[in-house]
Amino acid sequence: MDGNQNHLLPMQLTPVGEVRSEIKTPILLAGESDIELQERLEKIREYHQQVENNICELFIFPRWVELLDGIDGFSHILVLYWPHLIDPERRNLRKVHPMGRKDLPLQGIFATCSPARPNPVLMSAVSLLERTGNVIKVKGLEAVDGSPIVDIKPYSKSYYGVDNPTVPEWMLQIHRDLGIDR
Amino acid sequence: MDGNQNHLLPMQLTPVGEVRSEIKTPILLAGESDIELQERLEKIREYHQQVENNICELFIFPRWVELLDGIDGFSHILVLYWPHLIDPERRNLRKVHPMGRKDLPLQGIFATCSPARPNPVLMSAVSLLERTGNVIKVKGLEAVDGSPIVDIKPYSKSYYGVDNPTVPEWMLQIHRDLGIDR
Repeated sequence: MDGNQNHLLPMQLTPVGEVRSEIKTPILLAGESDIELQERLEKIREYHQQVENNICELFIFPRWVELLDGIDGFSHILVLYWPHLIDPERRNLRKVHPMGRKDLPLQGIFATCSPARPNPVLMSAVSLLERTGNVIKVKGLEAVDGSPIVDIKPYSKSYYGVDNPTVPEWMLQIHRDLGIDR
Repeated sequence: MDGNQNHLLPMQLTPVGEVRSEIKTPILLAGESDIELQERLEKIREYHQQVENNICELFIFPRWVELLDGIDGFSHILVLYWPHLIDPERRNLRKVHPMGRKDLPLQGIFATCSPARPNPVLMSAVSLLERTGNVIKVKGLEAVDGSPIVDIKPYSKSYYGVDNPTVPEWMLQIHRDLGIDR
């Protein structure tokens, strides 16, 4: 994957590394199944717990190792990655039921965190545990094993923190169902 | 720019819209000039003020308009965009002095917010003021006029907020110099 990058096209991404995680498959895909709500909720809760506690590695390809210098001065980083297991056809989706829950109203893709989006660059804010050479250990990353890493950014409250953001009722419902109180 | 997207390559991005802003040129580029520190600080402060107060428009190409449905339920959004005025050669940079300040130690690109990075997908958390059809008015976006928009995500504290993140001394120094107290 770390091939010749001398002729980067405009807006062509190149993987700078990959995720090595115990999480091998994505959460149930929106619209994927006709599973009952209670069962779906249970699975989402389990998955969420697994992600929260998951410690995984960001394996950065050796040619980019220098770019990590100084990263361990930060307690948290943003990881941008590509959901490589999502069918590219799904980049054309318009609307989804959040988390595939038909009890929640259809939302435009840009109003959701759906991995199926025109440009599926996903992002997590994670806790940085340790850097050793070209490997970074982090906690709380949702990316599945093998996901190409697109970028790493330092997390600063001044850039990415927002005081008292408000979200719509359907997202509050998801938070309540997941036991998230923030 | 909004052409045929039937044959999306892996990790090839397609612009979903563009930024329309009064900000026409990027901040002084790292390493670009031999300007004195005091003058540089003054320019950075001015630029930062301008960005903070800047109200601009995200013009989403009509074919994607439906994807915005529900976005106005959020007070804040994340805007992912491409810094199209940055020379693609700069995607090969290894280290920079943060904000081009030679008084601050060299840092690996992944430890900085430099727009020059292997995959220059930049991101801002901004306040959403209004959506009218395919146009969203936001406040506080750093992107310059004409920047291709890569993605829009809803801002939720549960996803992107971090309690008490810590940053290294050089970044605290930048915050002090800019009068940022968070």
